[in-house]
Amino acid sequence: MPADESAMGVATDDPVALMNAVIEHVVPAMHQLGIRVVESHGGRAVGVAPMAGNGNHLGTMYAGTLFSLAEMLGGALFLANFDMSLFHVTVKDVQIRYRRPARSDVRAEAMLDTATIEWLRREADACGKADFSLDAVITDADGEVVATTQGTYQLRAGSVT
Amino acid sequence: MPADESAMGVATDDPVALMNAVIEHVVPAMHQLGIRVVESHGGRAVGVAPMAGNGNHLGTMYAGTLFSLAEMLGGALFLANFDMSLFHVTVKDVQIRYRRPARSDVRAEAMLDTATIEWLRREADACGKADFSLDAVITDADGEVVATTQGTYQLRAGSVT
Repeated sequence: MPADESAMGVATDDPVALMNAVIEHVVPAMHQLGIRVVESHGGRAVGVAPMAGNGNHLGTMYAGTLFSLAEMLGGALFLANFDMSLFHVTVKDVQIRYRRPARSDVRAEAMLDTATIEWLRREADACGKADFSLDAVITDADGEVVATTQGTYQLRAGSVT
Repeated sequence: MPADESAMGVATDDPVALMNAVIEHVVPAMHQLGIRVVESHGGRAVGVAPMAGNGNHLGTMYAGTLFSLAEMLGGALFLANFDMSLFHVTVKDVQIRYRRPARSDVRAEAMLDTATIEWLRREADACGKADFSLDAVITDADGEVVATTQGTYQLRAGSVT
């Protein structure tokens, strides 16, 4: 395959397509939840999850889907900013606060600033690993915040492919 | 239907069958993850999730499945200890710490002591709601701890059925 394509046949310079291919083919449990990336460039990533198929006993969105949507953004930002032939990413901890019930499709957004991205590359190169914090905000179709998360991820030297 | 059966045709005095019926019929996204309750009596609940279908980019168990397994135990303990015709339960926040990779089927366990259960019944009766904390431990097939969670749930007066 061409050097600019991943093993899944997706151009590695398209972070949205690449992350959605990873979700579909590598983490099928996440794909089943309907979680998708819709934006990922530079230090900003946005994902979505549908209300359909994700209801709970209250008729609102299942807590596990909201968590999984936000947690995924660490992976999307990894793929958009780091060379997957040199690094991989893991999650160390996440706290989620459910603010109000979600009764619609939801979107989650998280950002990493440029200075942090540059520091992570240098630190992981030098030390083999580097931690980063990521805050995500999940909003409903009206733009109301339904949940917030704070996660700690670790960038590690070495490819997993 | 008989008074001792839920709307799903499951005996309400069998908390394991009742919770598994809720997972299957009311929260299908959780059911798709393979999450099941295997023990639930008094203040102790145990759930399981399979490695099959829950892999991630590292070949270990997907973070969202581990979270969802632990979070579910609050619901299982609710059904085992509170009258679902009088109360319902919601989750307010959960923190998960991933301790080591899970490479096998996993089990999660959580406990509520009798005094807390009694206090929750009285408080929710008197005030309409009452919060409780729940710690869960997730272990792999070798009994090694792969993740721990701390959650806050709210027992609320009023049925959702």
